Amino acid sequence: MQLSHAARSAESSAIRDLLRHADRPDVLSLAGGLPAAELFPVATISEVAGSVLARADGLQYGLSEGDLALREIVSDGDPENVLVTTGSQQALDLIGRVVLDPGDPVVVGDPCYVGARQVLLANRAELIGVGVDHDGLDVDELESHLAGGLRPKLVYVVANFDNPSGAVLAADRRARLAALADAHDFLIIEDDPYGALRYDGDPVAPIPGDRVLRLRSASKTLVPGLRVGWVSGPQFVIDAMVIAKQAVDLHTSTVSQAIVRELLLQPGWFDQHVAGLLPWYANQRDTLVAAIAAHLPAAEFHRPDGGMFVWCRLPGSDTASVLTDAVEAGVAFVPGSAFAVDRDLTDHLRLSFATVAAAQLPVAVARLAQVVQPG
Amino acid sequence: MQLSHAARSAESSAIRDLLRHADRPDVLSLAGGLPAAELFPVATISEVAGSVLARADGLQYGLSEGDLALREIVSDGDPENVLVTTGSQQALDLIGRVVLDPGDPVVVGDPCYVGARQVLLANRAELIGVGVDHDGLDVDELESHLAGGLRPKLVYVVANFDNPSGAVLAADRRARLAALADAHDFLIIEDDPYGALRYDGDPVAPIPGDRVLRLRSASKTLVPGLRVGWVSGPQFVIDAMVIAKQAVDLHTSTVSQAIVRELLLQPGWFDQHVAGLLPWYANQRDTLVAAIAAHLPAAEFHRPDGGMFVWCRLPGSDTASVLTDAVEAGVAFVPGSAFAVDRDLTDHLRLSFATVAAAQLPVAVARLAQVVQPG
Repeated sequence: MQLSHAARSAESSAIRDLLRHADRPDVLSLAGGLPAAELFPVATISEVAGSVLARADGLQYGLSEGDLALREIVSDGDPENVLVTTGSQQALDLIGRVVLDPGDPVVVGDPCYVGARQVLLANRAELIGVGVDHDGLDVDELESHLAGGLRPKLVYVVANFDNPSGAVLAADRRARLAALADAHDFLIIEDDPYGALRYDGDPVAPIPGDRVLRLRSASKTLVPGLRVGWVSGPQFVIDAMVIAKQAVDLHTSTVSQAIVRELLLQPGWFDQHVAGLLPWYANQRDTLVAAIAAHLPAAEFHRPDGGMFVWCRLPGSDTASVLTDAVEAGVAFVPGSAFAVDRDLTDHLRLSFATVAAAQLPVAVARLAQVVQPG
Repeated sequence: MQLSHAARSAESSAIRDLLRHADRPDVLSLAGGLPAAELFPVATISEVAGSVLARADGLQYGLSEGDLALREIVSDGDPENVLVTTGSQQALDLIGRVVLDPGDPVVVGDPCYVGARQVLLANRAELIGVGVDHDGLDVDELESHLAGGLRPKLVYVVANFDNPSGAVLAADRRARLAALADAHDFLIIEDDPYGALRYDGDPVAPIPGDRVLRLRSASKTLVPGLRVGWVSGPQFVIDAMVIAKQAVDLHTSTVSQAIVRELLLQPGWFDQHVAGLLPWYANQRDTLVAAIAAHLPAAEFHRPDGGMFVWCRLPGSDTASVLTDAVEAGVAFVPGSAFAVDRDLTDHLRLSFATVAAAQLPVAVARLAQVVQPG
């Protein structure tokens, strides 16, 4: 009895091991993308859950599309165009299932969010990495691939505060990307878990056009444990995803959906809640950035305007090779190689400012400095 | 832009449409497998949820394997051997992903649970239907397929109170099935959502041997909306499923898992709760069976010892063709053809006694009789 080809070639990955690192109490973890638990709206969730759980019909089987009232709240008008997913990770899987045949090319940033890479590979995509700079995906490079004959079915971007690069895809690149999608008949996945977490500057409008599958999530602004995300996009893709979702898990937890619905239904509550997160995260970012400047003077990075991550280059380092020593020294991070598609990102690393308390961030970076620039 | 082959060939199915039928207030639905909402332990759930939701760490990201304390409770000793899934439907999908390559043969009962058929086909299985009688899967027929050279990777059974047949796989057949799995190197999926819902007779021990993936679920005995199931089985398969689950949805709702955990942790509570369900469901079954005998004298069926379904044959009928008329007349059911793999089950239908109030069950069957044996 042999496992499937997909299972034999699956990477036992990254995020999984990271969550284990993050669990050790003696390790300050700059690795995980865990939002700060002290900001979770615990009291409000308990309150709305009381009414949700008091009704038996909220505990029954539900529709594969998701709770209609929730879809109405998060839609831009047409709830039929929205599918509720078990976190936006599931949206990526469902898109892979309904769009990709084995070997179909998919363009991703290089570096790329590890969860996207993992699920796209599980759906037998052929990944093509395109460079990322401070303005996001290098659309020139994409265009030259297209001119060279590449015909991707999907282009995946985290357009706001990319994981891991922290970059925001510039408005002109968004417009060009949309035009390329029209010209070359591909779909764009705009994964947007961090968009609301902007600490500086003005928001950039979403990628235009009607070829965008937009993924959103309750994980970063509300709580991750509920596993509630949603996706909107071209109707024929959403319709196929609903059928696929029925096969894979029938529907997302009705209790989780109802809690998110009730939170979003409270007038003004969500905006006020997010407004409360911003100064806290901004201070975290500033503290981490200052600690990097102080302890790792050779580090090259851009201060991100939002999100959770600082993407650093440490010229001459091999960040993966020092990870074990770093954990031993009481600090965890994600080495650049974990995000690499085709490029050599050995000398990069991703540092999260979301999880560790501000007072401990300089301690964490000082520990890291001891390991990457010993003596 | 064309969808994937899998999406183009997916059946827009059954369960989905059924849930819509069930939603119409004027229709008495004998179609859905919805457990009776009036038996949901709403008060106890509200109570335990209060403590679950008061702690921020219960709202954070969790491990892909699932909540450790929950896995400890439901395991037979080793929680590493258990994976928590988003309902047992997801366990079927994950098994398909890690075991099946395109075209791999999978044996299922014929009739077969529609959700299993759908997800196995989505994972590109080649389904081979084997007959089902009152003692469950016809192991003689399976054996002759094997003697003829068939080499399935999986054999799928609902061993207790099968959906739709209601059959319990006899103890001797369980032993033979396990021996065949050893001899021919296949895995058995023992899907067991209904095992605890036994109204008569003695339980039959689970399928023996170390080639069994056993799927269990909170959906039928607690509540379905939480979407919590779990699977145990050979370690190498469970390990691969954990990696696959990380890619498809990271983990199951921590809130849903914690609610189930807290319910199961209360000493004696689960057994007492189930003991309370049994007489209610037994009365439902008896009422439905009596109504069938009264209104549909030509119907051929066995009274099931448990579960939720009565599987009927109406000789000479084409049950699919009268479904629209039936819904018009105010009753829904699932035609036999929805469960068919290779066989002609046109003259069968599945009637659920779980959802409609006992007082209304005779009304529902009388409406059905008007349609299938019109004046």
